[in-house]
Amino acid sequence: MGKIVTFGEIMLRLAPNGYYRFFQNDQMQATFGGGEANVAVSLANFGENVSYVTKLPNNPIGDAAIRTLKSFNVDTSDIVRGGDRIGIYFLEKGASQRGSVCIYDRAGSSIQKASRSDFDWNKIFKDADWFHITGITPALGPNLVDICIDACEHAVKNNIKISVDLNYRKKLWTKNEACDAMTKICKYANVCISNEEDAKDVFGIESKGTDVYSGKLNKDGYIEVASKLTEKFNFDYVTITLRTSISASENKWAGMLYDGKNSFFSKEYDLKIVDRVGGGDSFAAGLIYSLKNNYDNQKAVDFAVAASALKHSIEGDFNRVSVSEVEKLASGDGSGRVQR
Amino acid sequence: MGKIVTFGEIMLRLAPNGYYRFFQNDQMQATFGGGEANVAVSLANFGENVSYVTKLPNNPIGDAAIRTLKSFNVDTSDIVRGGDRIGIYFLEKGASQRGSVCIYDRAGSSIQKASRSDFDWNKIFKDADWFHITGITPALGPNLVDICIDACEHAVKNNIKISVDLNYRKKLWTKNEACDAMTKICKYANVCISNEEDAKDVFGIESKGTDVYSGKLNKDGYIEVASKLTEKFNFDYVTITLRTSISASENKWAGMLYDGKNSFFSKEYDLKIVDRVGGGDSFAAGLIYSLKNNYDNQKAVDFAVAASALKHSIEGDFNRVSVSEVEKLASGDGSGRVQR
Amino acid sequence: MGKIVTFGEIMLRLAPNGYYRFFQNDQMQATFGGGEANVAVSLANFGENVSYVTKLPNNPIGDAAIRTLKSFNVDTSDIVRGGDRIGIYFLEKGASQRGSVCIYDRAGSSIQKASRSDFDWNKIFKDADWFHITGITPALGPNLVDICIDACEHAVKNNIKISVDLNYRKKLWTKNEACDAMTKICKYANVCISNEEDAKDVFGIESKGTDVYSGKLNKDGYIEVASKLTEKFNFDYVTITLRTSISASENKWAGMLYDGKNSFFSKEYDLKIVDRVGGGDSFAAGLIYSLKNNYDNQKAVDFAVAASALKHSIEGDFNRVSVSEVEKLASGDGSGRVQR
Amino acid sequence: MGKIVTFGEIMLRLAPNGYYRFFQNDQMQATFGGGEANVAVSLANFGENVSYVTKLPNNPIGDAAIRTLKSFNVDTSDIVRGGDRIGIYFLEKGASQRGSVCIYDRAGSSIQKASRSDFDWNKIFKDADWFHITGITPALGPNLVDICIDACEHAVKNNIKISVDLNYRKKLWTKNEACDAMTKICKYANVCISNEEDAKDVFGIESKGTDVYSGKLNKDGYIEVASKLTEKFNFDYVTITLRTSISASENKWAGMLYDGKNSFFSKEYDLKIVDRVGGGDSFAAGLIYSLKNNYDNQKAVDFAVAASALKHSIEGDFNRVSVSEVEKLASGDGSGRVQR
Amino acid sequence: MGKIVTFGEIMLRLAPNGYYRFFQNDQMQATFGGGEANVAVSLANFGENVSYVTKLPNNPIGDAAIRTLKSFNVDTSDIVRGGDRIGIYFLEKGASQRGSVCIYDRAGSSIQKASRSDFDWNKIFKDADWFHITGITPALGPNLVDICIDACEHAVKNNIKISVDLNYRKKLWTKNEACDAMTKICKYANVCISNEEDAKDVFGIESKGTDVYSGKLNKDGYIEVASKLTEKFNFDYVTITLRTSISASENKWAGMLYDGKNSFFSKEYDLKIVDRVGGGDSFAAGLIYSLKNNYDNQKAVDFAVAASALKHSIEGDFNRVSVSEVEKLASGDGSGRVQR
Amino acid sequence: MGKIVTFGEIMLRLAPNGYYRFFQNDQMQATFGGGEANVAVSLANFGENVSYVTKLPNNPIGDAAIRTLKSFNVDTSDIVRGGDRIGIYFLEKGASQRGSVCIYDRAGSSIQKASRSDFDWNKIFKDADWFHITGITPALGPNLVDICIDACEHAVKNNIKISVDLNYRKKLWTKNEACDAMTKICKYANVCISNEEDAKDVFGIESKGTDVYSGKLNKDGYIEVASKLTEKFNFDYVTITLRTSISASENKWAGMLYDGKNSFFSKEYDLKIVDRVGGGDSFAAGLIYSLKNNYDNQKAVDFAVAASALKHSIEGDFNRVSVSEVEKLASGDGSGRVQR
Repeated sequence: MGKIVTFGEIMLRLAPNGYYRFFQNDQMQATFGGGEANVAVSLANFGENVSYVTKLPNNPIGDAAIRTLKSFNVDTSDIVRGGDRIGIYFLEKGASQRGSVCIYDRAGSSIQKASRSDFDWNKIFKDADWFHITGITPALGPNLVDICIDACEHAVKNNIKISVDLNYRKKLWTKNEACDAMTKICKYANVCISNEEDAKDVFGIESKGTDVYSGKLNKDGYIEVASKLTEKFNFDYVTITLRTSISASENKWAGMLYDGKNSFFSKEYDLKIVDRVGGGDSFAAGLIYSLKNNYDNQKAVDFAVAASALKHSIEGDFNRVSVSEVEKLASGDGSGRVQR
Repeated sequence: MGKIVTFGEIMLRLAPNGYYRFFQNDQMQATFGGGEANVAVSLANFGENVSYVTKLPNNPIGDAAIRTLKSFNVDTSDIVRGGDRIGIYFLEKGASQRGSVCIYDRAGSSIQKASRSDFDWNKIFKDADWFHITGITPALGPNLVDICIDACEHAVKNNIKISVDLNYRKKLWTKNEACDAMTKICKYANVCISNEEDAKDVFGIESKGTDVYSGKLNKDGYIEVASKLTEKFNFDYVTITLRTSISASENKWAGMLYDGKNSFFSKEYDLKIVDRVGGGDSFAAGLIYSLKNNYDNQKAVDFAVAASALKHSIEGDFNRVSVSEVEKLASGDGSGRVQR
Repeated sequence: MGKIVTFGEIMLRLAPNGYYRFFQNDQMQATFGGGEANVAVSLANFGENVSYVTKLPNNPIGDAAIRTLKSFNVDTSDIVRGGDRIGIYFLEKGASQRGSVCIYDRAGSSIQKASRSDFDWNKIFKDADWFHITGITPALGPNLVDICIDACEHAVKNNIKISVDLNYRKKLWTKNEACDAMTKICKYANVCISNEEDAKDVFGIESKGTDVYSGKLNKDGYIEVASKLTEKFNFDYVTITLRTSISASENKWAGMLYDGKNSFFSKEYDLKIVDRVGGGDSFAAGLIYSLKNNYDNQKAVDFAVAASALKHSIEGDFNRVSVSEVEKLASGDGSGRVQR
Repeated sequence: MGKIVTFGEIMLRLAPNGYYRFFQNDQMQATFGGGEANVAVSLANFGENVSYVTKLPNNPIGDAAIRTLKSFNVDTSDIVRGGDRIGIYFLEKGASQRGSVCIYDRAGSSIQKASRSDFDWNKIFKDADWFHITGITPALGPNLVDICIDACEHAVKNNIKISVDLNYRKKLWTKNEACDAMTKICKYANVCISNEEDAKDVFGIESKGTDVYSGKLNKDGYIEVASKLTEKFNFDYVTITLRTSISASENKWAGMLYDGKNSFFSKEYDLKIVDRVGGGDSFAAGLIYSLKNNYDNQKAVDFAVAASALKHSIEGDFNRVSVSEVEKLASGDGSGRVQR
Repeated sequence: MGKIVTFGEIMLRLAPNGYYRFFQNDQMQATFGGGEANVAVSLANFGENVSYVTKLPNNPIGDAAIRTLKSFNVDTSDIVRGGDRIGIYFLEKGASQRGSVCIYDRAGSSIQKASRSDFDWNKIFKDADWFHITGITPALGPNLVDICIDACEHAVKNNIKISVDLNYRKKLWTKNEACDAMTKICKYANVCISNEEDAKDVFGIESKGTDVYSGKLNKDGYIEVASKLTEKFNFDYVTITLRTSISASENKWAGMLYDGKNSFFSKEYDLKIVDRVGGGDSFAAGLIYSLKNNYDNQKAVDFAVAASALKHSIEGDFNRVSVSEVEKLASGDGSGRVQR
Repeated sequence: MGKIVTFGEIMLRLAPNGYYRFFQNDQMQATFGGGEANVAVSLANFGENVSYVTKLPNNPIGDAAIRTLKSFNVDTSDIVRGGDRIGIYFLEKGASQRGSVCIYDRAGSSIQKASRSDFDWNKIFKDADWFHITGITPALGPNLVDICIDACEHAVKNNIKISVDLNYRKKLWTKNEACDAMTKICKYANVCISNEEDAKDVFGIESKGTDVYSGKLNKDGYIEVASKLTEKFNFDYVTITLRTSISASENKWAGMLYDGKNSFFSKEYDLKIVDRVGGGDSFAAGLIYSLKNNYDNQKAVDFAVAASALKHSIEGDFNRVSVSEVEKLASGDGSGRVQR
């Protein structure tokens, strides 16, 4: 099977340990993560051949980000070195009624200042059959919009499937900017990954009667959103994650896959959350894996939701689970018994 | 607005990390806390001008306690230095069916051996309009009862409002001793903060039909207790916290405010507990903030309960939250979603 | 009262901290544990006179295992020193839908290579009136089956009661091997400790209509299993733990004691799990304590279940609780309130 | 005595624990520091009234930097809030033949993008009689050169003494840029703090026959440099730190003070290094303290060198020592005996 | 061979990790130690039969102190339980020119408030042939002087050898008080352990020409001190430790044994210090071991000095070394090569 | 340039943190290392193309070992998966007079039980031009001797240079066994890496007048040993590391290279040791790098010694340094100044 290429920003993630608030003591967990990198690592853990494309500074922090990706068997040979700094995000984990807090310090990062000439997409896409990006990458600046479109054009030319996770970040751009750029990008895409908020924020597509803060979800609404997205962009698949936030410690989590005709809902999991960052990315990875491996639609969404349910039990951005672990859960054993 | 003065003991808090039992390994968290200090820090975090009054030994441990208070912008200029030692408490955090354990080692502390001449209340109360104490302070000894009364008299003379949190500690004094002292002190007080056990332990005031261990609460009973307290001491306000302990990991938490006529109940929160020490103090601080800022009665109890709900998600005695975080929760968003 | 003797393997337990997956960072908790050692420590914490019998290498790791047992007041004077290595197990704690993972690295351990002549049971059983083993020990090899039988014969000769926890470990032996060996051993035993899976795996005894993965339990089924076990081996008591795994973070936990005629069910606890390894062992210890101290049957099972409910809230293999803590819970206070 | 004002950048300092190389594990010490902030904290620890002036972002990281300064009793009321980010530096501590490594990530920090109108020097200098800056601040950009000159002009107008630590940072500006800016600033200064490299890098002033890498120092050379600096800028005092780097673990450390006529050399200390960052800043603070308190010249340099010798034994940027601890060492007791 | 009895206070030791100053972060090492307990553990590690006698509060902290002693195979069956608290000492480890700092918080400890009737010396001394105390214990109060004398009288009556380590603590009593009490106690003693300062502080015995701060030692002076002590108290042996403090990180360390006629000096070790607390105690233990095992005088002092040299490389109060490790060093291999 | 292949065992390394003795607390550093793996990582850090060949169990511990190697860019594609366990070594770091302690628990490891058919050397050596092994690998058993010879024969056939580090481990085999096997292997080798002890232990080759414990070294003796080794095996190069152990904290370190005619000695470094495990391996890697890159003989030994001097300042088995860092030191800058 062909290689998967993902493109975006990998950041240094700095997080107080446990449930400490920022700077409550003098230690921080220093790891790496970021939407597209999370997808890459997840897919590599599933045994896929994955290349991660980004630009990183030529210093020991850039080296460490690459070492981390290499340790997961992600191909880093197309990472461009240069620029001034790695993007950073500070994460304070929430609990109970107190939500997690993210502070981004990513302006001026190497990837944010990258130019089209940094990436030779013909070379990068050699042997590839899938390309994944998210809405975070074009949000980094007009140069990134151009680079993303460049990549998509090359992908299409090479018969590479494209998946796009809408992932709207309001601190990075306005809804109008997002709509313009994502409209261009989605035209190339085969698979759209979203949650209800993203579809609304980016394209103004929403269903009636669902309030993401209410703790209730409405199946018809999700189908309506998926169908409107499909109409607009002619996607092969639209998939939507369904998160019900009871508190920062407990979520309900499910997903839906829409193939243009039918919708497939997964079971819903009651999650006791260890770390919810990267939950959506692990879903995207699970879905890409399922589609690449020709799982039927129900199995695909079940696999993606099980994979991402497991992610919520794992510290850090990356989903450190294997296919067999996901399949064990997807097949119904969520009892968490000891594996001796 | 005027300064708030709180008076009491700040202790060194020594706690095993995580859910370890005492001395299960060789590390302990060493922080500071104590009922009135917790109120002071909480109010300072809300932007109030707060002075903390106590007596601390002239050694690096006393210095560290002061540094900590200063870091929260608490005024420490009226802290008296001298005496032999800081009080200590050892805390073992509980989980599930295993309750937390507190061992006090506070005998002989500088504040416990303080004398009336240590505190110049006229100077301390300059620019103040609120004074807060708890039942823990007079429980430290007859000298402290005298100092508290001294303080209250000066407060009354200066038109300073007084709030008293009953906070009965059975290891420090008998119910009779508590009743005698607290009866004297409550005569000066405008606001009484209690829970049902305290009112019963200190003044023998209880309602029918409520069992604090039963997991059920009875609204009428709380109103009855508040009304009896008001009758006895002519308080402007009586406020009662309503905790239902399901286990050491899960509590339900609500509050009630009684203004002599009407009672106002907050919504009830389902808490996943990170650290419940200081929960009552964070409620008291929330209430004082609300009353000082002329919140209406419903909003006042809602703010106080939301503030203290958040405290349960935070490690250590101190409630490290801002007014905007409390208001976000009080206004209904307890979903714990990530703030990006 | 007489001494309790337990016999088996104590292992080095290596576990990532918190909810990290294996080798997610470079630190591991290094403690000691193992079925029979856990029972010994638990009983010593209840104030019983307990001797632990095993074989440990003559190196600092063996020394440390012994130091640990000594610290709990377990008699280690009958531990044989020699052989090449201590058995090791690696434990990754699960959370939510992700189950805990155990990797055993115990082949070639000193106890596994022990021979009958290593143990002088007459000397070991001096002053003893109770002997406890589990199905893990004979599973280590035919030499261990022989040693266990040897021990049982000496025990019977000395009027020492024998309790056997079936504890089937599929990675150590086949069901047939287990059935052969455990049939021989159970003939000597007075008390059988099991869960439904063990009875089925070892002796093919099962009830109709219970699915351990279904989250439901069936009282009649448990009575049926206990009664069949009693028929087969003429036990004085059969006791069965009833675990309902909702997730790796939440279990329901209860127990049943059958005295050949009547069955006694404990209340069921909702556990928020800190560490579930050693849960069954802490139940066995609670039961042995109860029976040795002539508790009536209902109180015995209540004590055993309360003891083991508390274990789930404690890090490490050992149940670090006192009789008074267990009795407080067994008598109904599971509210987890702070003990000040 | 008057207030001391220092102005510059305070950064988030991220350092692997112990002697780990960058990202060797997943934990980092997260503290705060920076040349001028280090001087401020050191002087506050000596009991001086110090105000620190900078610009910090309006987020929890900026809050934490301020909390830290407050905890040391540094006046933070003139810190301007705004801008996008706090500057960061990553520090890897060296040992033996492996030198420490600093990676700066400070571009775009709030202070670097500050403008003259951010600072109201008349207000800031109220009650002040000393102003301290270093060459790092103007190196942040032309706007900072302007702000520094602005500050110096106001200081001179208000009869405030000015001390300047040359502190050349080659990654921030060229030697020519440094020479231009520092020539302007030094014209206002009364006290110049330098080491031989700085004088050479910034002003091209050097002595013959000293090689900073050779491990030998040459007293006449230092006098020559001080005298040339004095000639050029008419300083009241020039002081030079004399570091001999034997390895990253061992340095020799001394200082010299030149009053325009005579030179005063301190004794030389053999340092076993715990953390050498901030060594020069702690010397500057010691000198400013000595001069403000009218120590005679020999005592002044002895105090400054003893203060900074102690700094090398303390983790973090800040010199956490009191006047009495410095005086104990300056008076000759460097035996490191236990103070019981 | 007979049992060794030691008597004194075991304290909770709270120390910041690494070279942090007090409360520089929020973690502390929490272990146990104290002069006589250190001797007991050291001797138990040498394989001796040792009983430690003290009084400890009946709470989990007292339990933990006992667990720790038990883990080293120290007999704790004569420890009395009761009183209010365990003594505490806070230790900040020094480095380079910065000395370690000890803060004692031991007033009101269970042992300090003990009375003569707490200890049944006839029972305690059963099977004993050695009794060890230090000058710290009688310094705790007149009641402790009485208890110590009581113990000594019983020891003498039972032909038990007595060793006394002078160990003067100026924060606990005056020189006059020390002289009075220690004069009484030393009359019973066979072996006196001292350093030059103690002999001078307690008995005013000093040699000419030695300055403990000068970094030089004078052999004749030590012989003179030992001989004067012997004259006064008719000791069988006087032994003196010779410490030269170069800095908190480096000491020279040697010892001398005087048998009433001849003096025996050990070689001198260059110590790179990990933790110097308990250095003197480990020497005392080495000497007691040597004398009990009839080592010749030279070998005795060599063993004691080697044992205590190793102690300086070990974290915590206790000397965690075996006889074979000490003998390896005493026999000349101090090269620190890896033992594979 | 061609690929380097190294072959041997990579072990799980478990070490107490800091200077703790084994099991002094409940945490251990869990990393990976082993002679040949250390060489592989070191060479990969120098930018070489390196493949590491071993056999590892098919479990998460084996996975983690491979992840670690991958993170350093070591090619792991020829690692065979299978067998039962990974070898383990426990390391207690020494300090001052206390030497480090190694406990090996490697019996039964996957590589130890490997067979010749596990390794397809023709495939492994594709594109390779260097093969490195040490005396540790054949010491694991006769099967490993065979595999090593197999590998060497294939290497010779393919014109691949072979370097052998004698590395005698007395716990793994006798001197006679070592002599037999290493004689066979050395016949194939081009480069021999040794220290004086190894040459003596394995081949009985020693010089007169050098005592490795004496702290002195004798240049002529080393030349004599190198020349005798060359005579016996016709090596192109013999290189000897010269370690003088002053204590566990301080070593002197140098090296010598002999090309059959002339000897080249490096400068000698004074090392303050952070972690000396892997010191010899880092020397071997430095030498192989130098020879592969055609450094002249003096520069080769200087590079190798500088590389290994740096290793002693780095935690863990692996030498985490780049070529430029080594060259900076080799060219004379060992002052350890901060690199800003």
